[in-house]
Amino acid sequence: MKAVLLLSGGADSATCLAIARARGREVFALSFDYGQRHRRELACARALARRFGCREHRIVRVELPGADVSALTSRKIAVPRRRPRGRAIPVTYVPARNAVFLSLALSWAEALGAGEIWIGANVIDYSGYPDCRPEFLRAFERMANRGTKAGVATRRRFRVVAPLLRMTKEQIFRRGIGLGVDYAFTISCYDPGPRGAPCGRCDSCRIRSAALRQVRQTS
Amino acid sequence: MKAVLLLSGGADSATCLAIARARGREVFALSFDYGQRHRRELACARALARRFGCREHRIVRVELPGADVSALTSRKIAVPRRRPRGRAIPVTYVPARNAVFLSLALSWAEALGAGEIWIGANVIDYSGYPDCRPEFLRAFERMANRGTKAGVATRRRFRVVAPLLRMTKEQIFRRGIGLGVDYAFTISCYDPGPRGAPCGRCDSCRIRSAALRQVRQTS
Repeated sequence: MKAVLLLSGGADSATCLAIARARGREVFALSFDYGQRHRRELACARALARRFGCREHRIVRVELPGADVSALTSRKIAVPRRRPRGRAIPVTYVPARNAVFLSLALSWAEALGAGEIWIGANVIDYSGYPDCRPEFLRAFERMANRGTKAGVATRRRFRVVAPLLRMTKEQIFRRGIGLGVDYAFTISCYDPGPRGAPCGRCDSCRIRSAALRQVRQTS
Repeated sequence: MKAVLLLSGGADSATCLAIARARGREVFALSFDYGQRHRRELACARALARRFGCREHRIVRVELPGADVSALTSRKIAVPRRRPRGRAIPVTYVPARNAVFLSLALSWAEALGAGEIWIGANVIDYSGYPDCRPEFLRAFERMANRGTKAGVATRRRFRVVAPLLRMTKEQIFRRGIGLGVDYAFTISCYDPGPRGAPCGRCDSCRIRSAALRQVRQTS
C-alpha cells in the first residue's frame, strides 16, 4: 500500500519510517526546506530514505509565512535552554507547521493515489505542540476527506497514521533500534553548531539524551 | 480587525477583498506562486492589493507536490474547452490546493494575531471543486482551532470567512462593481496567451463572460 510519510530526519520520523517499512508500506518520503536552523536534518532525511528503501524522496521548499515568530526559524529569537513551565507552548512552535506539512503531503498523496499519510507526531514526552495532538490529527483527517477529489468523489478515504503518538521517547528508541534504525544518522537538536554538532542543551537534545541513557541502562 | 485574505488576482478574490475592506477589515493579502499557467494573475493581485489599501501583500512561493496531475499547473495536460459532464471534478483541480493555501494563511494569521481568514470560494456557478465546498471550509476551521496555539491555548478562535460562497457569478460581479472593483484588472483565464490575453474558451473564461454579459444587459 502506498503511503506518503513526513520525514524530517529526526529520531521520531526515522522510527516512523522504519515502522512503515516493517508494515510493508511503499513509502514516498516528503521533507521540507522551510528555513529551519537545523537544516542539516535534510541530509539525515536523505540517508534515511535510502537506508529504508523509500520509493521516492522529495524535498519541497516552502516559505512559512508565520516563521518569523518561532525560535526554530527566526534568528531573532533564541532557542531556549529550558522547558517552558507547565503546559505552556514552547517558542520553538512554528505557527501551523503541521497543518502546512500535512496539507502538502495530502496534495502528493492524492496525486499518487496513496491512501495514508504517516507522521511521527508524539504527545507523551513532548506535549507542548498543539499540532501534534490526536484531536488535531483527527480534525485534519476529516478536513482531508471533505476537501479532496479522492475523499469526496470516490470511496477511498485518507488516513493519518501516527504510530508514535502515545509512545514514550524511550519506547520510540527501543522500537527503532529493534527495526534497524541507527540514531547516529538522525538529528534532533534545534540549534546545532556550524558543523552540525548538537547543542546538548535545547529541549529536544535533553529529551533525546535522557531517553537514550535509559535505553542503554536497561539493555 | 486583522484578516488574512487569499488573493489570487481573479475576479472572485478581487470581490472578496473589496467586501473585506468595505467591512472595515485590516487586510493582509496572501498570493501564491505555485507554478500556475496563469501566473500573470500575480500582477493583478499586486495592483488589487494597492488599489484596496491592503496593510501588507505577500507572494509566497510554494511547490505543490500534487501539481503534476492538474491541467492548471502541468504543461502535459491540456486545459479543457468544455465543462465536464454532470458532477465530475474538472482536470483543472489541483490536489489539496485550498488545504495548502489556507494552511499557509493560517500560519500567517497566527503569527499576526489575525482571527479571520478570507477566501473567495464559491459553490454556485462552479461546484466542481471539492475544496470550495462549505463542508470543507468548516472542517478546515475546526482543524485550525485544534492545531494552533491561538485556537488551543487562548480563547481566540479562527474563522474562515467566505462571503461569495452562495452567490452566483452575476451577483459577485454586481457586488464588486458596486464596491469599485474594475474587473479589467482581474484575470480569470486558466490558459492565457503569451501576452496574457484570455483564451476565451476555458471554463473560467466562459463563466466570466456569460456573467458579465448578464450584468451589462440588465444594468
